[in-house]
Amino acid sequence: MAVKIKVVKPEVTVNRERVLANINTMMAKAKLSRVKLRPHFKTHQSREVGRWFKEAGVTGITVSSVQMAEKFAADGWKDITIAVLTNLREWERTVDLSRRVDIGILVDSPAVVDALPDVQSFQGRVWLKIDTGYGRTGIIWNDIKRIEKTVKAIQNRGMQFVGILTHSGHTYKATSVGQIKEIYRQTVERMGEVKEMLISSTGIKDCLISIGDTPSVSVMEELYGTDEVRPGNFVFYDLMQYSLGVCGERALAVTVACPVIGVYPEENKLVLYGGAVHLSKEFLTDDKGNKIFGYLAKNKEDGKSVDRNAPVVSLSQEHGIVSTSDAARYKAVDIVHVFPVHSCLTCNLYDRYLDEEGGEIEK
Amino acid sequence: MAVKIKVVKPEVTVNRERVLANINTMMAKAKLSRVKLRPHFKTHQSREVGRWFKEAGVTGITVSSVQMAEKFAADGWKDITIAVLTNLREWERTVDLSRRVDIGILVDSPAVVDALPDVQSFQGRVWLKIDTGYGRTGIIWNDIKRIEKTVKAIQNRGMQFVGILTHSGHTYKATSVGQIKEIYRQTVERMGEVKEMLISSTGIKDCLISIGDTPSVSVMEELYGTDEVRPGNFVFYDLMQYSLGVCGERALAVTVACPVIGVYPEENKLVLYGGAVHLSKEFLTDDKGNKIFGYLAKNKEDGKSVDRNAPVVSLSQEHGIVSTSDAARYKAVDIVHVFPVHSCLTCNLYDRYLDEEGGEIEK
Repeated sequence: MAVKIKVVKPEVTVNRERVLANINTMMAKAKLSRVKLRPHFKTHQSREVGRWFKEAGVTGITVSSVQMAEKFAADGWKDITIAVLTNLREWERTVDLSRRVDIGILVDSPAVVDALPDVQSFQGRVWLKIDTGYGRTGIIWNDIKRIEKTVKAIQNRGMQFVGILTHSGHTYKATSVGQIKEIYRQTVERMGEVKEMLISSTGIKDCLISIGDTPSVSVMEELYGTDEVRPGNFVFYDLMQYSLGVCGERALAVTVACPVIGVYPEENKLVLYGGAVHLSKEFLTDDKGNKIFGYLAKNKEDGKSVDRNAPVVSLSQEHGIVSTSDAARYKAVDIVHVFPVHSCLTCNLYDRYLDEEGGEIEK
Repeated sequence: MAVKIKVVKPEVTVNRERVLANINTMMAKAKLSRVKLRPHFKTHQSREVGRWFKEAGVTGITVSSVQMAEKFAADGWKDITIAVLTNLREWERTVDLSRRVDIGILVDSPAVVDALPDVQSFQGRVWLKIDTGYGRTGIIWNDIKRIEKTVKAIQNRGMQFVGILTHSGHTYKATSVGQIKEIYRQTVERMGEVKEMLISSTGIKDCLISIGDTPSVSVMEELYGTDEVRPGNFVFYDLMQYSLGVCGERALAVTVACPVIGVYPEENKLVLYGGAVHLSKEFLTDDKGNKIFGYLAKNKEDGKSVDRNAPVVSLSQEHGIVSTSDAARYKAVDIVHVFPVHSCLTCNLYDRYLDEEGGEIEK
């Protein structure tokens, strides 16, 4: 039994039961759809949560930095995709890693492929990063010339081309589940076109397709048109996903425990030790255009639920202000729980998590 | 000579010369005005930068957590105000600290004062936190009843009342230097009223006044109506302060060095290894309502300046997107420097800084 840690400053609390349900639901959908689930570990960045995935049958993972790949390789993961464009300044470490575990990297231009030094020592796979509409990174799906040139550069350098990969992050900006499903449909259609074109024009024999963002993978009943999916946020979900209609309230698996340090009933206000450096400045906008940096949790029989009457309305570096007509029910010293808007950014601010009993979860 | 660190991932770069100029300018203004400069160390959180303040003659500091107080006490600081409302859950550590160094704490209610255990062991000073209009924490300046009651509670428990303290953070939301000066004027006027009232009604003999936010302390030619000022951000400044008109371009003392990982000249776009976990999600809004998460720096003869033609227009966890018609001039592997919007939140994300020569600055 883990030692119980007393909460004296903001701490992320993880509901293990909800996390396991989130993992198992996604795993079941992937199995049903016969696609590989390669979860993105950037959300939790935790060795221990990683092991929960392993127990659920996950064998390959996604990370967002070379450092994160090294960390999880050291914890026994053998199949890791580094899902950011290859950073030439960390190439030596990437090569090193590829000699120990199965590493996938992303490229988006002949210039980068041609600039890779000591390429014969790299033993990993190479994915071509495609932009199917998000507009962040990758070659635009219909820029056939740059796509072909990059694949040829990979072949010329004797590297192992494995397939095409995209991240449809524009689902985060959708305003309805219907829109999210439409983005999914468009994504796999465009990826299918790129694959066909590549097979017919470059002589490659196979080309895997990798997609995956939490919103679309969550709302699709079946995952078609792809070989693997790489959602990350779904392990914890958050208010952003909940307000998008992507998950239910009982899927919200993390809160930030914060000491109350100020009570102002006349102003309908609580002040928390819990600010921008504990929650991140990510926000939602309510019907009236006000920024919402989180909501307090209330305890219901089936676990924590969102208290819409207690929003976090402003954040400074160390303080959070909660607007609530119930302020008089609290006193300084109490602990309240805040549902974060964006769990990836919130969790990144911590070196450890606690479980619901106060035991430490290793990060 | 410090070892030169090669930049392979996002790193905060500190321009020592500009930092020293910022410190010396503020120190000179405080001396001229005969007020004590008690700089807030939450912005830099660095032992080494702290020593630069010490060399400039600073003896007392401000911090925003008990942990930060412990860190700087261990580095030799003897006079520390913990400028957040007292966290009852860290009271034991606060008492401990008060036996070793001169500690100031903040209270805002009789309930908290009465709830402090083992109060006779606490050897520090007590400030009353006043809200002069910001609306975050503290007793509203004209709530005479709560102010009197809290001071009486401090006296009843035999604690050492030292004065009243406020933070006029609403200067950050001002839209002109004139507005900032008006907030300063109102702040010291209201603090003066509280002090007079307290001296006449509670029998205290003296009551120090402590104010201080970077915008107002920066734009006032002379600091009147207060005994000490506690600005923090001015050590580094940032785009937020610059766009408020609070500082000049040459006062911008930190940038984030980021590797370029994607180059898309056809889309006028650069992709940086440098995202929300390296810059924070704080943003400015440009004339057209677009979010700006930073600007690239360009090198001029007198140092780095803001390149308004190269804004960071979007951030995800690890990526930053720069919009620039000059994209073709870059290649993946290059390092670019980004001026952060809010240096406090950006710097909080790092365990070390680099100086302009690549030497490590201890945090």
